[in-house]
Parts: sequence; C-alpha cells; structure tokens
Amino acid sequence: MKTAILCLALLPALSGEPALAQTPQTTNAVSQSEPKEDFAPATSNQQGKQYPQVNSEGRVRARIVAPKAQSVALDIGGIKYPLIKSEDGAWVGVSNPQDEGFHYYQIIINGAQIPDPNSLYFYGASRWGSGVEIPAKDQDFYTLKNVPHGQLREVFYFSKSSNTNRRCFVYTPPDYDTDTGKRFPVLYLQHGMGENETGWGNQGHAALIMDNLIAAGKTKSFIIVMENGGSPRLNGGPASPHGGRPSFDFSAFEKVLLEDLIPFIDSTFRTVADQPHRAMAGLSMGGMQTRMIALAHLDKFSHIGIFSGGSIATNDISDMAAFKQNIKVVFCSFGSRERGSTSAKANANALKEAGINSYYYESPLTAHEWQSWRRSLYQFAPLLFQD
Amino acid sequence: MKTAILCLALLPALSGEPALAQTPQTTNAVSQSEPKEDFAPATSNQQGKQYPQVNSEGRVRARIVAPKAQSVALDIGGIKYPLIKSEDGAWVGVSNPQDEGFHYYQIIINGAQIPDPNSLYFYGASRWGSGVEIPAKDQDFYTLKNVPHGQLREVFYFSKSSNTNRRCFVYTPPDYDTDTGKRFPVLYLQHGMGENETGWGNQGHAALIMDNLIAAGKTKSFIIVMENGGSPRLNGGPASPHGGRPSFDFSAFEKVLLEDLIPFIDSTFRTVADQPHRAMAGLSMGGMQTRMIALAHLDKFSHIGIFSGGSIATNDISDMAAFKQNIKVVFCSFGSRERGSTSAKANANALKEAGINSYYYESPLTAHEWQSWRRSLYQFAPLLFQD
Repeated sequence: MKTAILCLALLPALSGEPALAQTPQTTNAVSQSEPKEDFAPATSNQQGKQYPQVNSEGRVRARIVAPKAQSVALDIGGIKYPLIKSEDGAWVGVSNPQDEGFHYYQIIINGAQIPDPNSLYFYGASRWGSGVEIPAKDQDFYTLKNVPHGQLREVFYFSKSSNTNRRCFVYTPPDYDTDTGKRFPVLYLQHGMGENETGWGNQGHAALIMDNLIAAGKTKSFIIVMENGGSPRLNGGPASPHGGRPSFDFSAFEKVLLEDLIPFIDSTFRTVADQPHRAMAGLSMGGMQTRMIALAHLDKFSHIGIFSGGSIATNDISDMAAFKQNIKVVFCSFGSRERGSTSAKANANALKEAGINSYYYESPLTAHEWQSWRRSLYQFAPLLFQD
Repeated sequence: MKTAILCLALLPALSGEPALAQTPQTTNAVSQSEPKEDFAPATSNQQGKQYPQVNSEGRVRARIVAPKAQSVALDIGGIKYPLIKSEDGAWVGVSNPQDEGFHYYQIIINGAQIPDPNSLYFYGASRWGSGVEIPAKDQDFYTLKNVPHGQLREVFYFSKSSNTNRRCFVYTPPDYDTDTGKRFPVLYLQHGMGENETGWGNQGHAALIMDNLIAAGKTKSFIIVMENGGSPRLNGGPASPHGGRPSFDFSAFEKVLLEDLIPFIDSTFRTVADQPHRAMAGLSMGGMQTRMIALAHLDKFSHIGIFSGGSIATNDISDMAAFKQNIKVVFCSFGSRERGSTSAKANANALKEAGINSYYYESPLTAHEWQSWRRSLYQFAPLLFQD
C-alpha cells in the first residue's frame, strides 16, 4: 500500500511516535505454498480483462504480456514477486495473501515501474496507478445495488485565497434531487498523503456506502464534499507544545477550506450553513488536517472524524467547556494491524470520561489502507447530525 | 488515434464506403528534421510530471525510465517511434508533428504495450490508456476559466430492459442549481466505438465547452446525458435497403435509451420532457446510433447531430413531411482530414434544398479524432432548442 509506505517513511521520523505505523509485514519472501485454485478476475479490472485475478486466500495472480522482457515483477504490499514467463509469452505470478479490501500495486518490466494495463487506475502514491480489490466478507456495505442513488458531482470553483480554479467532488444524497425544498448538513471528507480529491469517490466507494446506509435507514442523509488537501508543507518552526514533533503546515489548505470552499458550497448547494450541521473527517494526513483545523475552529465544525490519523487527547483541548458545548461527536479509528490503536482507544476513553460524545472503532484485520477507511466512514456516518 | 484505427479496420470492410475513413498518413517513417526546442509538459500529464512534452510543431517527446530495457517505443498516430536510452537510464524520443488536439498513445517496453506512467488516463481503444494534448490555436473554447461552472455528475440507475445497474454521466448547466424553478432541455450525447460514457466528460471537455459557451451567451443552457453505447453487435441479417452494408445492431442500446434512460432522466432531473426539447448526437459509432435511432423515432428527438459518423441523405427519410415537421435541426460534421466530408456536405445541401434546417461543419486540419468532435459540439450546441 503505497500511501502507507510514504507515510511510514515520513511520519515516524518526524513524530517519534508509532501512531501511524503499520505492523511490519511478517512475510518478506514469496510464499512457497500452493495457492488455492479458485481465482477469479478482480472487480477492479478494466471491463473484460481476465487479469489480475484474486482467490479466496486473498492472493493476487497477475499476468502481463511482455514477450521480449527479461524480468517482470508484481509489486504489491511492499513485496516484489517475480513473474514467470509462460509458453505464450505472458508473464504470470501469484502474491502472498493480502488483507481484504483495496490495494495499490504496480508492475515492473525490466526495471520500469508501470501501471498494470489490465486494472482500473486510482490516484495514490502521488500518481495514477493500478489497484486491486480483494473481496471482503463485509463488502455488501459498498456494493452497487438497486437502491436509490445519490450523485457524485465534479465541481469547479474559483478560489480567491489561492487565485486558482480548483476542483472538488460533491456527493449529494438521493433525496437531494427528489426533495428540492430540503436543506442538508455537510461532511467535509479528506484523503491521505499522496492521494487527491478522487480517492473517496473511487477506491473509497463513499457514494455507494452512503447510498446503502441511507436505503437501510441507518444514517441521516447529508452532502459530502471532497477537496484536494494537497501535500503537506513541513513547518520548520518550533515544535508543538506537547511533544518534540514539528507540525505539518496545512495553512494553505485551511485557508482554501474556510475562506473559499465552505462559502462556495453553502452558496451553491442547499446546505444548512451553520456549525451544528457541518462535520469534518479525513484519513491519515486528512485526519491530521481534521484534527488541526477542527480544533482551531470550534465555531465551524460540530462533528470530527479521524481515520488512521491520530486521536485527540484531553490535553489537546485548551478549553474543555467550549469543546463540550460545540463538538457533538469525536470519532477515531484505526485498522487492527496498525500501531497507534492502543493510545487512540485510551484517548477516546479519556474524552468520554471528560463528558465528550467520543467513539473509537477498530477495523478488524486491516492496516493503513482503504478497507479500514471505508469501514470507518460506514461507522462514522450514522453518528452524524443526530440532533 | 486508436479509436480511428479500430474504426478503420472494421468499417470500410463492412460498408464498402469511405465515409468514416481517415486520410492515409503520409509520413510513415520517423522524420529526420530536428525538432524545434520549445517543448513544454503536456497539459494531459499527471500533476507534476515533466513528460511527455509537446512543442509548437505538435511533436511529442516521451521519456520513460526503464534502465534494464532493450527497446522502448512511443506508439502514436499509427507510428512506432523508437526511443533512445540516455545516460541516466531513461529512454527519450520525439514523434512527428501531430494534429492539434487530443491523441491516444501508448508505450512499448520490450514488446509489452503499456500506458505511459506519466500521463493521465482516458478510455479509448477499449481500454484505459494514455492521452496527450497538443495545444490548439482555438483551445480557448475548452479552457477552464473563472466562469460559472456546471457540474458533471456520475449517476447510477437500474435498467429494467437489461436487468442491470448502469452508469451515466450527466452535465447540468450552471443555472440548474441557481434557478431551481427552471426546467431544461436534454441532449443525449454518445461516444465512439471502443470508448465509453467517460469520453465526452474527460477528453471531450464537454462540460468546459458548455460552461464557456453559456458564459459567452452563445447557447441556451441544457442538460447533457452521456451513457455507454456499448460495442456494436453485428447484425447478420439482410443488407440495408440502399447499399450492400450489413447494419450494426444497436437494438440493445436503443432499448436502454428509450425504455430506461430517458424515463429515468426525466423523472430525476428537471427536464422539459418532450420531443421538442430532446436532442441526440454522437461521434463516429455514436453518430451512427444517433442516425439510426433518431430516424426511427421522430417522436422522440427534435435535433440530430452526427459527428464523423456519416450523414443523412434525402432517401434515408421515408416520410419527408413528418421529418420536416418533427426535426428542427440536422447537423453533420467531419474533420477535414477525413474522407466522407464530400458526400456529407452534398447530403447536407440536399436536405437544405428539401426544406430541412440542415448544417454542415468541417473541422480544419483534423482527422477522426477528439479535436474534430470538441469543435463539432461547440458548433452544434448553439443551434439547439432555439424555438
């Protein structure tokens, strides 16, 4: 998972804390055991493409036509698996079992790192590249069904603070178009480092998750806005007050969000344009942005979601009375294979004891990856805008 | 241009007519002349990627990092250009001048056909692959500007006729959200063979073309619906009445369009749900679909656009009086480098003489490719819904 790798490379060095680190992969060589022969084309393939295939163990079998190559490898989950040339000139090989859910991967042909020509493409690791979907036992919650669907809208707007035309994606729920007198709360939902505003709509399946939740009557319907949180500019200034960690500088994005995006959304969509009906959440770096921006602007957001992006300790809160009055929900989550879950759970409990409506969720058997974040959104959405 | 190549491979053999054929490429070897050194990164690159680059002659310079490869080629416009290995292990080479506008291309590494890891990806030639934008003298009409923007919406719906969940994209104009009492006409706009419902929104820039036209007061504002016209099933039945050509079988798509899509759009969006406010157009195969479906259903569509997809002769019209009464505009277009323009122009003139509001447009110095179709939409849109 490239994003995780990027984060891992950067974050521990900066933070001196293991909060975002993934459990080290225990398998670092190709497994010798025979894969179970129940492979089927991945649902993340381009239409009609038979490879890559996945089996019930979560293994990925790639097949690349490269008749004149000397070496071809499948690079997934931090391991490069050599493919073997078949008689027909295609190179074929199988990975170790992967976690359920979505994984970025790439192909290496004679040293060139390229997307697999057979997969759909997703933005992560600061590039458009291949992704593969490992069927999950709980995939029903993000499966496309014959239920009323919302819309995922590509929207351009002018940002005064950055003097640029910017793009965001906006999910509107099914009743946005059928109940035209109704106004809706808004969740601002951010991606991780090396990802962009397309992540939640593509590999995150945010729209399908919401459609299914709404159809089941499990959540209020609300708008979701997904913008590009950019790359962090590392602030060379003084360390943050309660640790030795130099902070990420999200000030440019904060300005775009507060000064341009929120006013644009509130003037373009039928929102309820006030703090009680505005939430912010994000994954990994987007969770860090949520934590930083929401804590600094208690008058802007009432519901906070941090997915694999740290947590909020009681001593992060300068004015507990104001926080209690303004913040209706704090939700933190991690994958069970991530480190950081212990301290996040402890922080969540401490917040609860301090009288905050605080939730902790742990995604079973997943790491710093999209299945953790899909499940987090699925858990988080029903908590929003309940007043 | 892969789509063109696919069409060329299939259509002349079927039709015995040159209407959709491209002018043969006169350059079939790598030009020896020195390229002008004013290359700049293509606007179709992934963010931050410096290659491919294009120069003022329309040449494309590709650069691929493949240190252990024996051969790397750039495959664009039907020609494979060998790249040369640089000292840094990257392979670099330059193509002959390309027409202004958008072109599909691919990279070949040791015989493996792959997308360029540096470009954005577009659906054409029945796959997601690389595309490159050659700056055009008239590119202003599809440039992203600080004007009011419409929205490009990804919409899922259930199709009874095919018993599947289907996806379409819907462009809503800027005033769709600001003037919520207003109802809008609809253009159904189809892609070409080997393309899909994403083509007009991505490489076609349909939303930007409409935004700019509307901002300039040059067109009525209307909704555009883009669905997947599928692959043609070739009808093995009798030849069509006026030629030896076995017809494409678009009946499955026709059923989806008429029985599922139009009713869904009319019930979901604020449309004016009648024939005078419904148009159909398409490029290449989508033009053939438009011609076939619109002619067979004069009660459904009032405006017809056929871009590089043939034309309508007077003897295609069985009941001229009914046609005149129902069809407000017939628009046909070709790129000037395509064959077929002469007969299309003659047919357009004949229709005009027969009293039909008939238009012919020829895109200067372009072939069977997206620049012809962007320009066609730009010319066609202002003719729509003028009553």
